[in-house]
Amino acid sequence: MIEEICQRAKVASVKMAKLSADQKNVALGKMADALEANVEKILAANRIDVEAAKAKKLKTSLLDRLALDQKKIQTMAKELREVVNLTDPVGTILSSWTRPNGLIISQIRVPLGVVGVIYESRPNVTSDAAGICIKAGNAVILRGGSDALQSNLAVGKVLREALLDTSVPVDALQVVNSSERRDVEELMSMRSYIDVLIPRGGAELIKTVIEKAKIPVIETGTGNCHIYVEEDADLEMATPMIINAKVQRPGVCNAVEKLLVHSKIAKMYIPKIVAELHKNGVEVRGDQKTRQIIPEVEAATEQDWYAEYLDLIIGIKIVDNLSEAILHINKYGTKHSETIVTRDFTKATQFLQEIDSAAVYWNASTRFTDGNQFGLGAEIGISTQKLHTRGPMSIQDLTTTKYIILGKGQIRN
Amino acid sequence: MIEEICQRAKVASVKMAKLSADQKNVALGKMADALEANVEKILAANRIDVEAAKAKKLKTSLLDRLALDQKKIQTMAKELREVVNLTDPVGTILSSWTRPNGLIISQIRVPLGVVGVIYESRPNVTSDAAGICIKAGNAVILRGGSDALQSNLAVGKVLREALLDTSVPVDALQVVNSSERRDVEELMSMRSYIDVLIPRGGAELIKTVIEKAKIPVIETGTGNCHIYVEEDADLEMATPMIINAKVQRPGVCNAVEKLLVHSKIAKMYIPKIVAELHKNGVEVRGDQKTRQIIPEVEAATEQDWYAEYLDLIIGIKIVDNLSEAILHINKYGTKHSETIVTRDFTKATQFLQEIDSAAVYWNASTRFTDGNQFGLGAEIGISTQKLHTRGPMSIQDLTTTKYIILGKGQIRN
Repeated sequence: MIEEICQRAKVASVKMAKLSADQKNVALGKMADALEANVEKILAANRIDVEAAKAKKLKTSLLDRLALDQKKIQTMAKELREVVNLTDPVGTILSSWTRPNGLIISQIRVPLGVVGVIYESRPNVTSDAAGICIKAGNAVILRGGSDALQSNLAVGKVLREALLDTSVPVDALQVVNSSERRDVEELMSMRSYIDVLIPRGGAELIKTVIEKAKIPVIETGTGNCHIYVEEDADLEMATPMIINAKVQRPGVCNAVEKLLVHSKIAKMYIPKIVAELHKNGVEVRGDQKTRQIIPEVEAATEQDWYAEYLDLIIGIKIVDNLSEAILHINKYGTKHSETIVTRDFTKATQFLQEIDSAAVYWNASTRFTDGNQFGLGAEIGISTQKLHTRGPMSIQDLTTTKYIILGKGQIRN
Repeated sequence: MIEEICQRAKVASVKMAKLSADQKNVALGKMADALEANVEKILAANRIDVEAAKAKKLKTSLLDRLALDQKKIQTMAKELREVVNLTDPVGTILSSWTRPNGLIISQIRVPLGVVGVIYESRPNVTSDAAGICIKAGNAVILRGGSDALQSNLAVGKVLREALLDTSVPVDALQVVNSSERRDVEELMSMRSYIDVLIPRGGAELIKTVIEKAKIPVIETGTGNCHIYVEEDADLEMATPMIINAKVQRPGVCNAVEKLLVHSKIAKMYIPKIVAELHKNGVEVRGDQKTRQIIPEVEAATEQDWYAEYLDLIIGIKIVDNLSEAILHINKYGTKHSETIVTRDFTKATQFLQEIDSAAVYWNASTRFTDGNQFGLGAEIGISTQKLHTRGPMSIQDLTTTKYIILGKGQIRN
C-alpha cells in the first residue's frame, strides 16, 4: 500500500512541476473553501479520535492539540488562503551566464518533487503542510500521529475532493491511511520515490525519523533555547524579555528553556528574576551557585541542561564569563535560537559569531524565530540542521535547483 | 580513536570559523609549497602502497589512480593555489532587512563546521578535498581507500606540518590512520561532531555511505548520463557531441553512458553512429530494435539501462517519441546530466523541464557538468541529490547560513 501511494505521488509530482502559480492558487482557494463547507464532517471524524484519546487517557495538552472546533477549522482555511499570497518560487532564475565557449548556463528553481511529512496528532498540520508543499509545486504524502487518524483522513478527503476540478492532481495530496508502525517505517525507506522527509513534532519523533530514514531528512523543531544575561546587561530590558520568551507560549520550540547569568550580577539579579518567574507560574531549576543564592530552587541535573521542557519550567545556571556561556550553549543546546543581553558590542559580536545556532539574537526574545515573524511567510518548521536550510523553513526551501545549459553543439576539449 | 579525531576536529572548527580569507590563503599557499618540498617523502610512501596493490593484483585503472609521480604532486600543489583564488564565501551577508517592530535580521554565510570526506584510493583527493574545505572555513576529516593509506598519511603529515606556523589549527586537517571497516562505520555515526559526510567515488562507495551514515550525506558522483537524438536533430552536430561525451574521458561521471535515438531516424542514423563509435573503440550494446538494424551489436540487458560503465561502452535504445525518452531517462538515470539534440524549441523546452536531473543540456556534450567548466571554480563533487546543492558542489556549498537578529529588547505579542 505504501509503495502504491509513493508511486502515485511520483506521477503526480511530474504534473505538479509544470503548474503555474495561478493554477496552484485556484486549487488552494478551493481547498480552503472545502474545509469551511465541510466543518461538520471533519468535526464528526475528529470526535471519534477525541473520544478514543480520552478513553486512552491521553494528556490534556495532547488532547488540546488533537481536538478541532469550528474556529480551528476556519484558521486552517485562512492559513491556506495565506499560502495563496506567497510568491511562487518555482521557475525563478537564480542566475544565468554565458561561458567563453558560448554555453548559456542558468540555475533555476524547481520543486523538490515528493515531500513526505511525518507529524504528531495535530490535524491542522494536515492542511498546513499540504498547502505549502503544493504551492511549491510538490506532491505531498502526509502521515500524522495515529491518535488523529480519523481526523486526518477526513481533512485529506475534503481537500482531495476539492482538487477534483482543478489542475492539481488529487494524488498530489495523500494521507496515509494506517496507524501501523511498519507502514511508517516502509514510508521512510522509499528513497526512489520520496525526495525529502520532514518530521514535524517533538524530539522523540525527530530522533526516530533520523535513525530510521533512508531518505534525506530535514531536522526541524527541537528547541532548547538559551538567554544569556551579561554583567553589563540592561536588566530593565532583560526581565520582560526572559518572561516573554518563557511564558508567552511555553509549548513551542522557540520558547526559552535555559537562563545563563553572569556571576558578577548573580547575587543581585537572580532573586529578582526568580521572583518574577515564580510570579508567572514558572518552576525554576538551578545549578549549585543559583541554589546558594536561593536555596528553595530545585537542583538542575545534567539531564536538565539538555532538556526541551515545552512547559513552564526554566533552568538557571551562573557562569563566570561569556566564553563559559558560549561553551555551555554549544554543548547542551539544539542549535535553534539563543539570545545575549548586553550593552557591549564586542561581547555581542563574539556571541553572534561563536554560537552555532540557526538564529542568534542580541537583545531580543527568542520567540521571534518563526517564518511569519521573520517576514518570510508560512513555514513548515524550523530547521536546526545545517544542510539545505537553517532556521524557519519557508516555501522557497521546499524547492531545489536545476542547471539548464543551452548550446550549439559544444564539445569539451 | 575515531571519537578523539572528531573531538579535535570540532575544537578546530570553532577556530576555523573565525579566520579571515587572508589567513586561510596563507595556509593554503604553505600547504602547496610543502607538497612540492616533500615530493620524495610522498613518493616513498606511495611506492609502498603501489607495491602492495600490485601484489594484490589490483586492476590497472585503479593502480593508475593510486600511483603518484612528481607531476601529479605538482598538480596537487597547483590545485591548492587555485583554491587561494576562490572568493571566500564566509561572512557574506545574503540579505538583511528591518521588521516593522525594529528587529534587524541578517542571513549570513558561515562554515558548515566539520566535514567528513570518504573517498577511494586516490591520494590526490587528500589535498584537493582538504584545500576547498579549509578555504570554506571548515575542519575536515579525510578517510581514503585502504590501498592508499600510506600515501594519504604522508600527504596528510606534510600538509599538517605546513599548518604549524599558520593561523589554521593543524587539527583542521586530519587523515584517519586506519583501514579498518569498523572505524569508517564509527566515523559515519559521529553525528554530534560531524556536520556533513561527502562520499567521493563510485556507486558502491556512495551506496554504502548512504546506508550506514547517521549524519547528513551529500550524494555525489554517480553518472548514468544520456544523450537523446530527436528526429529533427542536426546529425552533423550530434555525432561529434556523442563521440566527445563518450570517449574524451570515459572514466568520469559526466561521460555519456546511454544513447537514445528517435525511431524515425534510427534506420538511417544508427549505422552511422555505431560505425563512428566502433572506430573510437567503443563497445555498443543495443535494444532489440537497434539489433534489428545492426545484428552484430550485443544485446543490452535491463541491468545495462541502469549501469554507469565508466568505460568505453555505450547502450543504445530506440524510442518512438520524446515522452518515451523522458520516461526512460527519469526511470533509469542517476539525475546527473542529460542532453537533447534537436532543432525544435518546444521539444527542447519539454525535455529541459521534465528531465529530473542536476544538469539538462540542449545541444551540448554532457562533459561540461563540472565546477571549472561551469565557471564556479574547484568543486568537491557533483551532487545528484536535491537537498542543499545540486550539480557541481563548489566552495559556497561547503557553507551554511545563520540568522543574526539585532534588537533593543523586543518581545513577542
